[in-house]
Amino acid sequence: MDSQRTESFSDGVFAVAITVLVFNLLPIADKTAGTAGTVTLTARHLGHFWPSYLAYVVSFMTIGIMWLNHHTLLAQVTRVDRSLLVLNLFLLMGVVAIPFPTALVANHLTGADGSKGQATVAAVVYGLVMIAISVGYASMWLYVAAHQDALGARRRVHTPTLSTFRFTAGNGGYAAGTLVAFVSPVAALIIFGVLAVYYMVEHLPDPSNSDDGTRAGSAGGTDGDQHG
Amino acid sequence: MDSQRTESFSDGVFAVAITVLVFNLLPIADKTAGTAGTVTLTARHLGHFWPSYLAYVVSFMTIGIMWLNHHTLLAQVTRVDRSLLVLNLFLLMGVVAIPFPTALVANHLTGADGSKGQATVAAVVYGLVMIAISVGYASMWLYVAAHQDALGARRRVHTPTLSTFRFTAGNGGYAAGTLVAFVSPVAALIIFGVLAVYYMVEHLPDPSNSDDGTRAGSAGGTDGDQHG
Amino acid sequence: MDSQRTESFSDGVFAVAITVLVFNLLPIADKTAGTAGTVTLTARHLGHFWPSYLAYVVSFMTIGIMWLNHHTLLAQVTRVDRSLLVLNLFLLMGVVAIPFPTALVANHLTGADGSKGQATVAAVVYGLVMIAISVGYASMWLYVAAHQDALGARRRVHTPTLSTFRFTAGNGGYAAGTLVAFVSPVAALIIFGVLAVYYMVEHLPDPSNSDDGTRAGSAGGTDGDQHG
Amino acid sequence: MDSQRTESFSDGVFAVAITVLVFNLLPIADKTAGTAGTVTLTARHLGHFWPSYLAYVVSFMTIGIMWLNHHTLLAQVTRVDRSLLVLNLFLLMGVVAIPFPTALVANHLTGADGSKGQATVAAVVYGLVMIAISVGYASMWLYVAAHQDALGARRRVHTPTLSTFRFTAGNGGYAAGTLVAFVSPVAALIIFGVLAVYYMVEHLPDPSNSDDGTRAGSAGGTDGDQHG
Repeated sequence: MDSQRTESFSDGVFAVAITVLVFNLLPIADKTAGTAGTVTLTARHLGHFWPSYLAYVVSFMTIGIMWLNHHTLLAQVTRVDRSLLVLNLFLLMGVVAIPFPTALVANHLTGADGSKGQATVAAVVYGLVMIAISVGYASMWLYVAAHQDALGARRRVHTPTLSTFRFTAGNGGYAAGTLVAFVSPVAALIIFGVLAVYYMVEHLPDPSNSDDGTRAGSAGGTDGDQHG
Repeated sequence: MDSQRTESFSDGVFAVAITVLVFNLLPIADKTAGTAGTVTLTARHLGHFWPSYLAYVVSFMTIGIMWLNHHTLLAQVTRVDRSLLVLNLFLLMGVVAIPFPTALVANHLTGADGSKGQATVAAVVYGLVMIAISVGYASMWLYVAAHQDALGARRRVHTPTLSTFRFTAGNGGYAAGTLVAFVSPVAALIIFGVLAVYYMVEHLPDPSNSDDGTRAGSAGGTDGDQHG
Repeated sequence: MDSQRTESFSDGVFAVAITVLVFNLLPIADKTAGTAGTVTLTARHLGHFWPSYLAYVVSFMTIGIMWLNHHTLLAQVTRVDRSLLVLNLFLLMGVVAIPFPTALVANHLTGADGSKGQATVAAVVYGLVMIAISVGYASMWLYVAAHQDALGARRRVHTPTLSTFRFTAGNGGYAAGTLVAFVSPVAALIIFGVLAVYYMVEHLPDPSNSDDGTRAGSAGGTDGDQHG
Repeated sequence: MDSQRTESFSDGVFAVAITVLVFNLLPIADKTAGTAGTVTLTARHLGHFWPSYLAYVVSFMTIGIMWLNHHTLLAQVTRVDRSLLVLNLFLLMGVVAIPFPTALVANHLTGADGSKGQATVAAVVYGLVMIAISVGYASMWLYVAAHQDALGARRRVHTPTLSTFRFTAGNGGYAAGTLVAFVSPVAALIIFGVLAVYYMVEHLPDPSNSDDGTRAGSAGGTDGDQHG
């Protein structure tokens, strides 16, 4: 199977998953409406749901960055085999699940009973899902690096070690965040947000000197994907 | 990364976000069903939910126009870099959130207690989200105008000032609408709807004399995107 | 703007809208679970929700056929202008709304109080949405027929009258169904389903002798869309 | 109609349907929040919902594999006619419905009253939907095999019998699983998961020696879909 269709399907899944995040905000409109019809919506009332907004922003940036990295990964190859497709499915299974820990964090970050026990559970589950996804990415990178010829790699994938290291670093970050959740769930969520920003900044030089750089060398750079 | 994939992913997000708007209508079927099983659905009963229908139409047209403008913006370039991708993510984060203020307006435009306080809060939040999105668009336009060569602009982006002005005008419109919400939330929502229509009409001449005009000049206009 | 991107966005909207229909089935799993935890799920219990299944099938086939016709319509042209895009948005606004009347019918086709009053209201709303969409299609067909050159029509659109007639026939069918709803809401829903089947069968000969026929005439028929 | 657009629309439907599965997990965040605000989220509390996680994994893998097989099927042809489109719609109607039996299983696998009656009903419905989808696939394969020339088959579809056999085997598996549901609903669900893995492994050699093998024979394998 050519990699373009896999990317296209994956892009669709990412696009839906990232949009599903808004479903954690929609119930706020209902909750503030109340059941007795006597609740009045105020700015302070809306502010009460700050964990939902924070979780929305962190998860949105996280899925967005994951989409970028997913594209970078599949852009390495021109074909995908069944094994890579199955690894990809496992990865997507984690990405699609993200709105669930996001909902847990949104609903439980401020414990109704004043204890931080349930906030910790929510943030830990969030971290575990992130770690699972990181493992998924690392598996795909390692597989691609090990089967470059069979997958028709566009150019030598010359940095498997570095990539692995980076993803390990990401794993380390998520593991650290998960541990922090036992002390401060809010701090853990902020760490997860910072990791998304880290992945954004960290990879900034990549596209220009490797991915797009290759294409810029050929005439009519735009057609890279079609006729490369 | 070539701009086509970014457009494709963004298109997916727009398509899902615009469809999510119907989830503000679905609960009506449940609410009119009642819990005691004794409520009978009548035309008047359905009419009671007019704020939901109005909010649906206004938000649908708004997201639709935003999709058009997003396409016009990305059609200027052939490549995107990481910075533009990040700006794009922030923009999409605002677009995906639109169903939330839409739900607030749908549920609170007719205050259960007769006061217009909560309707004002709902309409103001709606306006603030629109302003945030307008700022996102202006940022992307300014970035594209400032990095034309690096992004492989299809032609000289010769109207950054005018474009900026237009988006400022849009910002001004949303700011005015947000202020009006303090006096009349319904009027504010109608202003937001009028702004969508304004963006439709205002840009009507554009595609023919700049975007498509360029392509019409080449043979086999359809292939513009593939072989331009 | 080239018509391919518009099709792509519209396809996304159709794909999401058709999938949203399952959200009218999901609550059944909750309703049969009960709140007291004592309700046991039985086959008869599931059968109780037959209006939901019927509405799902009818709306699914309807949106599916609408997607086919939408593709046939846009396949006529190679470019779209702003006016056509706006007409398209209005059409999609109707298509995306379909899950709403579907939910009304699913919840109200079997009146809890034994009267058929609310079932009539639900079926009438369903019919009105269908009529609005039919009008949207007719508008787009008429616009395309009137602006063939500006839109870069692939071949002479030689059957505007016939097309209009067909859509009028469709309108007539939906209008008749809506009227029948006052007598028998169930019969109305079945008529709407039959109309979907009618559109399927009726257009069966078309693709082979006009649309694909043209392409079959050229070498390498597959490439039609890319290099036509 | 060229097969690429049908694939693209179908891909969109698959992508949304697979993502909708997360909506069976989202309510867990609400249920663990409780209504009285006194419920504390604990790891054990989350573990209580294991049928939801199991159903999510099984259905995700199932839809994922179905997407793969759907692609393999449509990759055989370069054109689709109305009949194939209608068969495809029926198939998608089954795929989109999958989140519904998934929700039934998630909610009813552990009977609140200790009996396994409702779990059996849920698992049986799950199996019946799978059987219906398998029949849909078999119909499409048989149709494609019988109309190879009209559909512009890429190469001789030389294994209709074998394919039919495989799908029959799949049907047999789902039928067996459905029967097992009367004894042990959990075992049935596990069988459905094993079937997904079976379809993964079983088809592993296919892409390399038939589908991609053909393309590998041509120069510039990537372009297969565009210029094949």
